[in-house]
Amino acid sequence: MDFSSKLLEQAVNEMAQLPGIGKRTALRMVLHLLKQPETQTLAMTKALEAFRTQVIFCKECHNLSDIPICEICSNPRRTNEQICVVEDIRDVMAIENTGQFKGKYHVLNGIISPIDGVGPQDLTIDALVEKVKQGEIKEVIFALSATMEGDTTIFYINKLLQPLGIRVSTIARGIPVGDELEYTDEVTLGRSILQRIPYEDSLSQ
Amino acid sequence: MDFSSKLLEQAVNEMAQLPGIGKRTALRMVLHLLKQPETQTLAMTKALEAFRTQVIFCKECHNLSDIPICEICSNPRRTNEQICVVEDIRDVMAIENTGQFKGKYHVLNGIISPIDGVGPQDLTIDALVEKVKQGEIKEVIFALSATMEGDTTIFYINKLLQPLGIRVSTIARGIPVGDELEYTDEVTLGRSILQRIPYEDSLSQ
Repeated sequence: MDFSSKLLEQAVNEMAQLPGIGKRTALRMVLHLLKQPETQTLAMTKALEAFRTQVIFCKECHNLSDIPICEICSNPRRTNEQICVVEDIRDVMAIENTGQFKGKYHVLNGIISPIDGVGPQDLTIDALVEKVKQGEIKEVIFALSATMEGDTTIFYINKLLQPLGIRVSTIARGIPVGDELEYTDEVTLGRSILQRIPYEDSLSQ
Repeated sequence: MDFSSKLLEQAVNEMAQLPGIGKRTALRMVLHLLKQPETQTLAMTKALEAFRTQVIFCKECHNLSDIPICEICSNPRRTNEQICVVEDIRDVMAIENTGQFKGKYHVLNGIISPIDGVGPQDLTIDALVEKVKQGEIKEVIFALSATMEGDTTIFYINKLLQPLGIRVSTIARGIPVGDELEYTDEVTLGRSILQRIPYEDSLSQ
């Protein structure tokens, strides 16, 4: 692309680094900003900067949070006996939307995926095991995508949890195999939490 | 959507104001930024702010520019005798890519579209007419979309240009190069027959 303005070119190039955004789409977005009041662009950049520099991970569950212990973890009406293990924040949002889970979460911040170079050491697995060792947790519920990577991650973590003598379950395979968890509808997702099965049983299929 | 972080929520809401970006896509983009170095987000926001607050419109052609008179308008090797009238900067870029035009441009910054509330007074039509009145321009070439709005805009401006006695033309409407004739719509095909050109002329490209 041949730009008549360096300022335009730089703005487009930066936007085009976002996932799923090509140069053409980036150009359309940037030209759109030009038709809106300057304040809109500044509000957007301020929000992005504040998010990127100030957001933190909850010390308990590793979910994104504005405060050291997130609202879910500090909610006294939620039980500490059940921990739902998820890949990332979008899965927490999806499960919260179902209203079917009253325990707490543990966000792995990824799943084991050798192809993407993500190994166990890149995830918050140690923190999860430590948390379970403290003794209050009675059940760990895996709510990961029904993919090879998800299954591998469950298999790996389950081996670490086995000696600790707690219940380990996975959400029911109401989710079509191969589908991403975050795109599952609320009813299916809610039901799959209620109908979770022991991890051993989930292998016998 | 239920966000665990206000910072996240605000960033997503701002990004979701961009055209074609829903909340889900905005969330994916914002979480992507979190996995990249902080410097990438800051480079992006700085580029957007610099663009939005510093970019100007070329005084001659109204194209986006970093300097008062853009590079095309100040290029002495381009003729002042032909002016190509386009809707916006993307059309300038598309035509420049062809390498087939050696005149200068006039960017309308839109086309007449009553449905979108865009009338002649919202475009740079007056400036175009003034420029033609100065006498150096011999031909105005309309390169607008082959739509109702494009045709209306050409009709309107042409009426203003008629008294000035210059040549007014539009880019050819025809079958796109490489397209099968049988799949071309009737209007385009009909027009391409009426506006046929000598075979020799079709080779000289």
